[in-house]
Amino acid sequence: MKKHVKWSQSFVYTLREAPADAEITSHQLLIRGGFIKKTAPGIYTYGHLALKALRKFEDIIRDELDSRGCVEILMPMVHPKSLWEETDRWDKMGDGLLKFKNRNDHEFCLGATHEEVITDYVRNDIKSYRDLPKTLYQIQDKYRDEIRPRFGLMRGREFFMKDAYTFDADKDSALESYERLYSAYQAIFDRVGLKYRIVQADAGQIGGSQTHEFQVLAESGEDHLMVCPKCDFAANVEISPAILPDNKKFKAEAAAPMEEFATPGLRTIADLAKSLKTEEKDLVKTLFYDSGKDEKNITPIAVLLRGSDELNPIKLKNYLGLSQEPALLSDGMVEEYTGAKPGSCGPVGLKMPVIMDSALEGKTNMIVGANKDDLHLRNVNPERDFKVEEMTDLRRAEPGDSCPKCQSEIQSIRGIEVGHVFYLGQTYSKPMKATYLDKNGKEQTLEMGCYGIGVSRTIQSAIEQCHDKDGMIWPVSIAPYHLHLCMLDPEDEKAQKVLSEIVEPLEKANVEIFVDDRKERPGVKFKDADLLGFPLRLVIGKRGLDNNEIELVERNSKQAHKMPPSEVSSFILSWMEKNGFNG
Amino acid sequence: MKKHVKWSQSFVYTLREAPADAEITSHQLLIRGGFIKKTAPGIYTYGHLALKALRKFEDIIRDELDSRGCVEILMPMVHPKSLWEETDRWDKMGDGLLKFKNRNDHEFCLGATHEEVITDYVRNDIKSYRDLPKTLYQIQDKYRDEIRPRFGLMRGREFFMKDAYTFDADKDSALESYERLYSAYQAIFDRVGLKYRIVQADAGQIGGSQTHEFQVLAESGEDHLMVCPKCDFAANVEISPAILPDNKKFKAEAAAPMEEFATPGLRTIADLAKSLKTEEKDLVKTLFYDSGKDEKNITPIAVLLRGSDELNPIKLKNYLGLSQEPALLSDGMVEEYTGAKPGSCGPVGLKMPVIMDSALEGKTNMIVGANKDDLHLRNVNPERDFKVEEMTDLRRAEPGDSCPKCQSEIQSIRGIEVGHVFYLGQTYSKPMKATYLDKNGKEQTLEMGCYGIGVSRTIQSAIEQCHDKDGMIWPVSIAPYHLHLCMLDPEDEKAQKVLSEIVEPLEKANVEIFVDDRKERPGVKFKDADLLGFPLRLVIGKRGLDNNEIELVERNSKQAHKMPPSEVSSFILSWMEKNGFNG
Repeated sequence: MKKHVKWSQSFVYTLREAPADAEITSHQLLIRGGFIKKTAPGIYTYGHLALKALRKFEDIIRDELDSRGCVEILMPMVHPKSLWEETDRWDKMGDGLLKFKNRNDHEFCLGATHEEVITDYVRNDIKSYRDLPKTLYQIQDKYRDEIRPRFGLMRGREFFMKDAYTFDADKDSALESYERLYSAYQAIFDRVGLKYRIVQADAGQIGGSQTHEFQVLAESGEDHLMVCPKCDFAANVEISPAILPDNKKFKAEAAAPMEEFATPGLRTIADLAKSLKTEEKDLVKTLFYDSGKDEKNITPIAVLLRGSDELNPIKLKNYLGLSQEPALLSDGMVEEYTGAKPGSCGPVGLKMPVIMDSALEGKTNMIVGANKDDLHLRNVNPERDFKVEEMTDLRRAEPGDSCPKCQSEIQSIRGIEVGHVFYLGQTYSKPMKATYLDKNGKEQTLEMGCYGIGVSRTIQSAIEQCHDKDGMIWPVSIAPYHLHLCMLDPEDEKAQKVLSEIVEPLEKANVEIFVDDRKERPGVKFKDADLLGFPLRLVIGKRGLDNNEIELVERNSKQAHKMPPSEVSSFILSWMEKNGFNG
Repeated sequence: MKKHVKWSQSFVYTLREAPADAEITSHQLLIRGGFIKKTAPGIYTYGHLALKALRKFEDIIRDELDSRGCVEILMPMVHPKSLWEETDRWDKMGDGLLKFKNRNDHEFCLGATHEEVITDYVRNDIKSYRDLPKTLYQIQDKYRDEIRPRFGLMRGREFFMKDAYTFDADKDSALESYERLYSAYQAIFDRVGLKYRIVQADAGQIGGSQTHEFQVLAESGEDHLMVCPKCDFAANVEISPAILPDNKKFKAEAAAPMEEFATPGLRTIADLAKSLKTEEKDLVKTLFYDSGKDEKNITPIAVLLRGSDELNPIKLKNYLGLSQEPALLSDGMVEEYTGAKPGSCGPVGLKMPVIMDSALEGKTNMIVGANKDDLHLRNVNPERDFKVEEMTDLRRAEPGDSCPKCQSEIQSIRGIEVGHVFYLGQTYSKPMKATYLDKNGKEQTLEMGCYGIGVSRTIQSAIEQCHDKDGMIWPVSIAPYHLHLCMLDPEDEKAQKVLSEIVEPLEKANVEIFVDDRKERPGVKFKDADLLGFPLRLVIGKRGLDNNEIELVERNSKQAHKMPPSEVSSFILSWMEKNGFNG
């Protein structure tokens, strides 16, 4: 197998400018480097370089999974409706699941995930407890009908995923499988060399109770993570408990008599705080949602929060036991239920359950809307003036809250979700009747887990994490090529001779080399080398060779090393070894 | 990387019986061996063993293409309508192209082929003659909405293909690219070790003029091939010239007067020949088609053939310059145009062009229908009694015809099309405006070629060609594992020790081993080993070890070799080497 490729024989075209629709740096760089090209919104063609990075990452995944007894298979992209009906997801998945009819008028969808297909695949073969446990996985092309695809491979429509599925006899064994895959994921992302955090996440309606996300740390990440700088606590803000430190908690005061006062035109917490010369956190806001208890009619609930806080819709969803985030009532509905426009509403006199965020614990003599336009109430007290259905954690955690494990001050960082481990229980196996016979010959339902890695997304997240103003900086583990070799005088005989002397021992050691043999000025070649971002750049030019000198530059640190040609190969080999490369 | 896998840790379940819908042997065997499992009609999940075979074949393809300067990329499965409209194929492709709307009501299709997407991919990057030639390829999942999928992976809906596309400055260069890919395909199928023939094929409407098919020889193949046993002539019957040997040609006789005679109830050539005590080949039949000259109205033509011959619809299509096979006129239409029911029709007095197959050359005093029910004419002579628009080759070639190159007797064999090389010219580049600037700075249209290999189909065709009554016989090149190691006493310590002594040197040499460690009777294990069909089977059992003897069986020849355990590894290594394995 040839390990070096000449630019002139490859198909790589770089761009000076990124297209206008590339919003984040990694997306811009991948486009500019010719790694990917848009075929349709959210749908990309992978150039040779991107494909090489992708394949290397896939091989790391395979290696770690295979060594843990996982079995690779390959499922189709086109799924029959019948399987998705067995779990009710044909209807429940919403518009993200792309459905279509074939020429015979049968319904299909494009697979966005494969729980149904894999459960169908195993259910007739797994017959006995002796067949368990099993873990099957695939690396496969998927489609999710994103309404607004963006950020290149980060949130595309067609994308590559590794999805694994575990099958176990009971919950204990399923959780052992969970640990096994969890540690495989650690090994995988460690080997790629990315900075990542493992965070607790929302189990949502998929079922089961245990789930973690693997998040690559990056400023532009879509996910907000709450992490403790002192202990190992880390959670997606979606589920991170919001705990006020003691010194920020309210101290109950003696209840004063409730009174109404005029607040003409003051409709926002900010305006109200300004007018009353108080802080937003000392005001109380009332939000109205449909509790979803009744499918046909609205059943409103009111939620009280500190004026400074944001409601976390996932917490409210889980509190209400819904499968989707609850809907905020429209302004018109609010007026219908309270008698006032939003901004003048409060909990007193409402004919609906009132729930209160835990941060309001100890809060007395509240200022709230009066349910009459342009009027508020002061000295409103829970239980005396309105009934509290329940006090619970509903707000979005913020930096400065207390760590749920060690009470240190938690911090907020951003991440890109690249992996997800999920204990499913019997959510799919039960409706699909995937059973086995236990030791006593009794039929039991399989326990399952599902485990995803966003393969194409990880490739881009590596660039989002590792780049500088000049271009990409590929980790050695998944770099399309290891060495970018700039031939300043590609036709020069001496240069060619040096080239082949350097290349030979490197190729033997599986170092992959991209040779820029184009007829371009050195400046253009160096700029492109920086843009493509392979770990090492070597420059072979007539002038240097006349001085018996060759320059090697580390892409990451930009450190330059000058040495005679005869020392280059061994220098590179030892650098590669130091940087985790083992051929 | 671990090179041996234990059956107990894999996911392989064999079946005694094939499902009723598996019509051909290879389909039955792949299902019975757990290689593939149906997810929906024509849509399969690939088990671990099938995936391994697939990957090995892919690597052979990559190796041969990369070494010839081809560049691998990866295009999406979901294509936007806009690209397919540029070439008019959105409408022309028919129902095989699966179309759908996404949630935003935009139209897409599932890629069945990628000429449009690849042309879009290159058209902005290739700017100059200096960028040429280029060959890009991908190995990718495709979908074709087959109305009646069958034969497993042979004619599935979702399937894997390698598709390559060449881009050249002019026709000469494009034909050089054609030769390069042609020789790559030879190298690929030679390495797999399949018996195949390269045949001329129908260029059809795709454009261009040169095309060959790579056909794996197998009784159950869907393609009929005409091959010369003496020279290298080989063609798909679709386009194979039909040449009568001299001794079978008609010799003109003196024209006798035409006369009508009664043939009550004689509507078929067979009945007529029987009644007249003559041979079918000496009778003349008349067929009626719509020539397709007018899109709105039928424009009938009559075709004369020897009574014993079959019309080749592709030849008629190409003669008429149509893009689809011409339609046979209905019985009612025939009656309307001739005045008689089919079976009593002939060329005399027709008001439509009459074309004549070349095999009728020299035929005089023909017997044909009289265009009156239950009447025929004898002593009908071309030109005297009806006008011949043209005499041309329209019949289906038959064994016994003459080779167009060397006049030997050609033979008929059957094949499975696994590869296709196609010179396209400017069929796609012209409407899609894929141009470059030539040496004189003048804009020129790119010359293209397309080159397909049915990756999943080839895997199955290998089994269709190589099997016996007991199961599959995998070629070493793509065998999922090389060695099937039956442990008769998997828990026996001595057996385990021997196992690891044998496995170690083999793994070092990249020999892949499948260890049957199941608690099953020897008979079951042997049957399964035969079914799965890996090239070598080794049996390690307590009884044999007590006699210091181990049995190795070649799957293909069933030849058994007995030897002491200490000699097994080196025997296997040398066998592997002899059989083309180089690690």
